[in-house]
Amino acid sequence: MRLTRYFMPVLRENPAEAQIVSHRLMLRAGMIKQNAAGIYSWLPLGFKVLRKLENIVHEEQIRAGHVPMLMPTMQSADLWRESGRYDAYGPEMLRIRDRQDRDMLFGPTNEEMITDIFRSHVSSYKDLPLTLYHIQWKFRDEMRPRFGVMRGREFFMKDGYNFDLTKEDALHAYNRHLVSYLRTYERMGLQAIPMRADSGPIGGDDTHEFLVLADTGESEVFYDSAVTDLTFGDRDIDYDSVEQCQGVMEEFTNLYARTDETHDQALFAAIPAERQRQARGIEVGQIFYFGTKYSDAMGAKVQGPDGKPTAVHMGSHGIGVSRLVGAIIEASHDEKGIIWPEGVTPFHCGIVNLKQGDTEADAACDALYASLRALGLDPLYDDRKERAGGKFATMDLIGLPWRITVGPRGLKNGVVELTSRKTGESSELPPEEAIEKIAKIYAPHHVSGNL
Amino acid sequence: MRLTRYFMPVLRENPAEAQIVSHRLMLRAGMIKQNAAGIYSWLPLGFKVLRKLENIVHEEQIRAGHVPMLMPTMQSADLWRESGRYDAYGPEMLRIRDRQDRDMLFGPTNEEMITDIFRSHVSSYKDLPLTLYHIQWKFRDEMRPRFGVMRGREFFMKDGYNFDLTKEDALHAYNRHLVSYLRTYERMGLQAIPMRADSGPIGGDDTHEFLVLADTGESEVFYDSAVTDLTFGDRDIDYDSVEQCQGVMEEFTNLYARTDETHDQALFAAIPAERQRQARGIEVGQIFYFGTKYSDAMGAKVQGPDGKPTAVHMGSHGIGVSRLVGAIIEASHDEKGIIWPEGVTPFHCGIVNLKQGDTEADAACDALYASLRALGLDPLYDDRKERAGGKFATMDLIGLPWRITVGPRGLKNGVVELTSRKTGESSELPPEEAIEKIAKIYAPHHVSGNL
Repeated sequence: MRLTRYFMPVLRENPAEAQIVSHRLMLRAGMIKQNAAGIYSWLPLGFKVLRKLENIVHEEQIRAGHVPMLMPTMQSADLWRESGRYDAYGPEMLRIRDRQDRDMLFGPTNEEMITDIFRSHVSSYKDLPLTLYHIQWKFRDEMRPRFGVMRGREFFMKDGYNFDLTKEDALHAYNRHLVSYLRTYERMGLQAIPMRADSGPIGGDDTHEFLVLADTGESEVFYDSAVTDLTFGDRDIDYDSVEQCQGVMEEFTNLYARTDETHDQALFAAIPAERQRQARGIEVGQIFYFGTKYSDAMGAKVQGPDGKPTAVHMGSHGIGVSRLVGAIIEASHDEKGIIWPEGVTPFHCGIVNLKQGDTEADAACDALYASLRALGLDPLYDDRKERAGGKFATMDLIGLPWRITVGPRGLKNGVVELTSRKTGESSELPPEEAIEKIAKIYAPHHVSGNL
Repeated sequence: MRLTRYFMPVLRENPAEAQIVSHRLMLRAGMIKQNAAGIYSWLPLGFKVLRKLENIVHEEQIRAGHVPMLMPTMQSADLWRESGRYDAYGPEMLRIRDRQDRDMLFGPTNEEMITDIFRSHVSSYKDLPLTLYHIQWKFRDEMRPRFGVMRGREFFMKDGYNFDLTKEDALHAYNRHLVSYLRTYERMGLQAIPMRADSGPIGGDDTHEFLVLADTGESEVFYDSAVTDLTFGDRDIDYDSVEQCQGVMEEFTNLYARTDETHDQALFAAIPAERQRQARGIEVGQIFYFGTKYSDAMGAKVQGPDGKPTAVHMGSHGIGVSRLVGAIIEASHDEKGIIWPEGVTPFHCGIVNLKQGDTEADAACDALYASLRALGLDPLYDDRKERAGGKFATMDLIGLPWRITVGPRGLKNGVVELTSRKTGESSELPPEEAIEKIAKIYAPHHVSGNL
């Protein structure tokens, strides 16, 4: 993309309404614009990141054998009356009456609807196991929406639902989700620690929240520092293997890591003192096993191998996709701006032309731009007639991991400058070597359907 | 995908509520499920098609230089009061009051919001031309939602908005959209004819609707049959070229083609009698130029080259993405079911194992499946223990363009059977040749981000 053809309204000043760094940087980098309290437009740069996260979530869910679909935003109140949650849910539920005077609501979650779909179409244990998920906009009418997309009212969420014949199978689905979430967050350059949590209004026995450590997190967390040494990496996993998934689950949850809701001071005290940590975290996902809570209430039964109707065991599993954009920035920025992890960066690199209008510099930038794109890479070329300082400041603010600087002086020596946003280190090298290096860096970070 | 691991609840019976063929076939093929009047869940097969259409729209809009972003579904009523449309819009607008007693609405379209974003961030003619678009769920509270996704209440739509300094520039944007829409529909295997139309509540001077001819269409259309001979094909186009875009616009709109709203009997009578056609059509898109209607009302001005503030010229341009799924089926089906065009098919081909459980047949199917996937192709393997007749009927119903049939008898001779859904023609050939043929067929139909 050429910047002169893009829409990236960068702000010079710090917006007064932003209390936390991710909100401030998203506004300043022209990623979002607030339309109403807690309701945002995703401007092009923000949307590009959001879409990439969405695609990563899809890829990892599909890899785990979960099946994508899409439920609508508007739901009928009747389903929620069946489960008993229509009255139980507080004023966070946005209730709507349509022109036929029917009670509707803007879905905050989809347990009822997916259970209804399941019971309409599945009647035999032979169709199990089944995990369906979708990524859809949801609404919670928060009293005090704040922190930008971190606690908005309209938010984008992946929620998946497993249907299994037995508790044992459902716990395998639980573990499968845990593994797929670990992969997902790591691809996004995040460490999200599964912590034992409280089930809240969803209900259920087993639940873990995934938390990203950050000073601005809303949750207080307590953990054994050894959990931060765990990484999933690129190990091969067979999602059908109960043992493998359980092994990963145990590896990542055996060490102490809890939110304040489930914190146990005695257990915490048993951790070697030098490994006890108390910090704050941002919740970016949660997995639940809740047994037959909804299938009992709503009659979601299948015929078991013995011919008898059996309520299915279910769980639900969420990833806060829009909130993740903020969480990634909270975890990865400096005083100059955002530092995107390579897995989620909106553009792979920036090209800064130090002398826009100079025939040679323009030609070199055009060639660089074309070569990168021919390799399937996605550069942002700052082709504005601006002074170098302004261009550098913009690139630092929007946080592309790599910047290629092109100027007449370097070109005379046949080189451009390649700079890492993270370390600030630069090296001079011929354009074709810079291209090769960028291509090599991004080879493991391919996301399908990049916009 | 292996069918035993998928969720594709095919119906044996024709659902009573479906009045038109696309609605009936989408229900029968397990593509959608109604959750409330005019509100649908997109089950996995339906979602796969919807997502593919979405990605095609993105690819073609980006190719035309238009910039993707995403606006929220919920809007503040205040913006609509500014444009005067809050009161003008009828009961089709879903009005909502939030917990703070603020008037909100579920957006039926986004002229107001995009104009607000524009005026907040753009102040100079130097930032023009600019075309922003998004693909988002919208809501119109239809009195009588019907025909499945063709006239639903919650629907998925691409809407784009151009901002230009002059009427001339805005008309180039209009033509650019026309060209990009022609490409889009052709990639979807559709002929959508641009017809002069009425501007309705959006307002404006110039507007064309794109109509797919189909007996079940809601619009009566009149046209010169010569328009149906026009195809855009794979010609190269420079979207920056005013002449090229205008040339295509003229080529595709000079012949008589109008909806009943703008039909002119005298002009129609002037067409050679053997080319006069009266038929029905489904509207799948519309482009508008409406000048300064919204920029005047909402104060969206830029500083012109002369230093004076000038209201920008705008247009809006829509594609009904969810409705297109129905339109494609209306245009492409037979008595057995859907016939997907290759550009939009949910899976590239089906694999039917005639003798599930037979070691050799299973191994051949597994190998075929793996080879196709290794080439980036996306087969649906019917690995159920069903009789062949049932498997064939399912494949015919869901309409994958190609079916590979694998059975012990063929395998003895080293062949499988490759069958075209459209023509019904079959040929026997070695598996590797079938794979090669499928790969060749789909080479021009790559869509990024296929799920």
